[in-house]
Amino acid sequence: MRMYDIILKKRKGIELTKEEIEFFVKGFTKGEIPDYQASALLMAIFFNKMNKRETADLTMAMVDSGDRINLSSINGIKVDKHSTGGVGDKTSICLTPLVASLGVPVAKMSGRGLGHTGGTIDKLEAFEGFSVELSEEDFINNANNIGIALTGQTGNIAPADKKLYALRDVTGTVDNMSLIASSIMSKKIASGADAIVLDVKVGDGAFMKTPEDAKLLAKEMVDIGTSVGRKTIGVISDMDQPLGYAIGNSLEVKEAIELLKGNGPKDLLELTLTLGSYMLVCSNTAKTFEEGKELLMKNIENGKGLEKLKDFVKAQGGDTSFIDDTNKLPKAKFIEEVRAKESGYIKKIHAEAFGLIAMELGAGRETKESNIDLAVGIVLNKKRDEKVQEGDVLAYIHSNDRNNIERAREKILKNIEIVKEPIEKLPLIYDVVQ
Amino acid sequence: MRMYDIILKKRKGIELTKEEIEFFVKGFTKGEIPDYQASALLMAIFFNKMNKRETADLTMAMVDSGDRINLSSINGIKVDKHSTGGVGDKTSICLTPLVASLGVPVAKMSGRGLGHTGGTIDKLEAFEGFSVELSEEDFINNANNIGIALTGQTGNIAPADKKLYALRDVTGTVDNMSLIASSIMSKKIASGADAIVLDVKVGDGAFMKTPEDAKLLAKEMVDIGTSVGRKTIGVISDMDQPLGYAIGNSLEVKEAIELLKGNGPKDLLELTLTLGSYMLVCSNTAKTFEEGKELLMKNIENGKGLEKLKDFVKAQGGDTSFIDDTNKLPKAKFIEEVRAKESGYIKKIHAEAFGLIAMELGAGRETKESNIDLAVGIVLNKKRDEKVQEGDVLAYIHSNDRNNIERAREKILKNIEIVKEPIEKLPLIYDVVQ
Repeated sequence: MRMYDIILKKRKGIELTKEEIEFFVKGFTKGEIPDYQASALLMAIFFNKMNKRETADLTMAMVDSGDRINLSSINGIKVDKHSTGGVGDKTSICLTPLVASLGVPVAKMSGRGLGHTGGTIDKLEAFEGFSVELSEEDFINNANNIGIALTGQTGNIAPADKKLYALRDVTGTVDNMSLIASSIMSKKIASGADAIVLDVKVGDGAFMKTPEDAKLLAKEMVDIGTSVGRKTIGVISDMDQPLGYAIGNSLEVKEAIELLKGNGPKDLLELTLTLGSYMLVCSNTAKTFEEGKELLMKNIENGKGLEKLKDFVKAQGGDTSFIDDTNKLPKAKFIEEVRAKESGYIKKIHAEAFGLIAMELGAGRETKESNIDLAVGIVLNKKRDEKVQEGDVLAYIHSNDRNNIERAREKILKNIEIVKEPIEKLPLIYDVVQ
Repeated sequence: MRMYDIILKKRKGIELTKEEIEFFVKGFTKGEIPDYQASALLMAIFFNKMNKRETADLTMAMVDSGDRINLSSINGIKVDKHSTGGVGDKTSICLTPLVASLGVPVAKMSGRGLGHTGGTIDKLEAFEGFSVELSEEDFINNANNIGIALTGQTGNIAPADKKLYALRDVTGTVDNMSLIASSIMSKKIASGADAIVLDVKVGDGAFMKTPEDAKLLAKEMVDIGTSVGRKTIGVISDMDQPLGYAIGNSLEVKEAIELLKGNGPKDLLELTLTLGSYMLVCSNTAKTFEEGKELLMKNIENGKGLEKLKDFVKAQGGDTSFIDDTNKLPKAKFIEEVRAKESGYIKKIHAEAFGLIAMELGAGRETKESNIDLAVGIVLNKKRDEKVQEGDVLAYIHSNDRNNIERAREKILKNIEIVKEPIEKLPLIYDVVQ
């Protein structure tokens, strides 16, 4: 078998065999196939696509390029949730304790953030003492005893994907459905989940800009999961404006805690209930989607979700008094109002721009080496569709540096579009693929 | 300017600017742009093509990546001839002295052969003592005094093309018209010719398999030449069977000499007159194609072409007695007949296969390091369309190794297709693009 022939075959639009895909992934991971042949193949894949079978084979070849996390000593059906990434997305923080409180074991690897979307680990470090440095034993024990455990990236998970993604990133071959889907799914499958609920974001602040594209991506991933025996559900959700009101680490943690206390923003609650309910269905904890939603609502109302968050934070060394009194969470020195300069209806709150403004305030990492400021960010006071009067507060800037407030204010005003006529409502959940 | 953006632009099908193409070629030649980005761009070019302007800009950027040969001290309009390569193509050996005998200066760089098509320098070394190692001074003087001079590749001609071709060769991006055309034309333009006559081969033994593709390639090259002020003519000629009868270095030289003595095979003569006549027209030596042909025929009949070959061989240190007595040329130990096993009409003589058989007999190089045997090869006794009886001699094998004769015989028989019904004649010259 020769890499040259594989490139030529795909260039001609011919389906690659499982063996050819494995040959490529193995050879590339080992460094036997040079980058310049890999990038030629990636570009040929961009133009000629991969079918379902090829995409599943690519995924499994990438899974097999590294370790698989063995979660078999954790009791029950392990359901993982994955979001394609959005601005203000703190869902994991409220969702995982909530489903864990209903007996679904959550044993999760998570990452730190890079760029304008924060990572769950960064956010949870707002609890003083919280650490993801668990031994494997503690990780398994916590998952079995408390029902929830979180660790940083461990082991050598899908190294082929890591290497391939780095190459795609510099050769203009990122945005192909098969390549995106196999990249996400290879990591999820290698991480040992029995079932996977995917939150595929769509809109301005997401990688997928249209509901159609998001649905295609969801379908690709669901097809991969299904074809390798993992129950997979893809929820397509709005990311055309930030999720909830808060953007920034502590601010988002506070919002997630408020949700578990029964005071969550409407959109965050709806998304949490939707994703959570599908997780309950996947783990056979609920028979129907509706039953799942009811169970989740009940555990918000009776405080069991909040209790589970406390158990979880405590087990990982964090200070749970921060949950009872969210004022203890890191706070910014300056909180400045941003007021509307005109009256009308909010047509658009550019999600990606808000992510970038929060990053510039210090909430995100520009490079891997950047330190983040847990306290800073933006809290919206109005959301899309809402009516505003000139002078109304649109948002609050939380900053530790007086000098960057005016620039943030300007950018915030620039990125909230106000129009004269009421505008059509957009759905939060566009579609569900299963 | 970033290479990433250039890849993405071409991937999206947007025309690249001259500056972007120059940025790529310069950066790649210097090693500042990595191979993996170059190959991604090449694959994107394969799918989204380049237009005329982009192709011309790519050509000139490759010309500018290295030296240009200055032929200005050679008097007259320098016309270069280039063949895209074929089996049994000894045209240069009879054509160049013939046009030189009419006052068209020929100052040519030539290469050695690799694979199944031989190089002109290899063939000319059949004359004992012949050398292409001329000083620049001798090269210019010979061209001015004798009207013909041949040197090996000198200087740093189009290094970008060399590097790019090596990458295309291993990434499945060779067969794109713009890339092929710019590769050929960059070398011709850098070599200093004022005008260029291209022999674009079509058929089984050529890179272009159909007359349509050959015409497209010819058109690409003529467009490039014209757009940079070089009169360029493309002749599309048959390579569906070997040209003439002889395949192999000495054997081909002998056939070329015979042509200049007035005994050339019909197809070789027709191609020589066609290409030569366009060369005369390009250099204003003949007013019309017909006049050019007449002038050439006259200089075959009066022996002036043959005399010019002698002058040329002598000036480059070769033994001219080999021309008067071609029996002095290297000869193989064994000459074996290959006889027809059935009667009928010859439908096909697979050119590429014959090139490979000759290579296996020792006439060609399998790798750059191979030594070639000047004496060996194949001489056809019948050509396409001819009627044969069972037992007729189809070809002669010239070999220096008794052990490889039977294999060659088998392959020759396998690669001459004989059918019962007379077959339609194919043209030698398909088209002319100018």
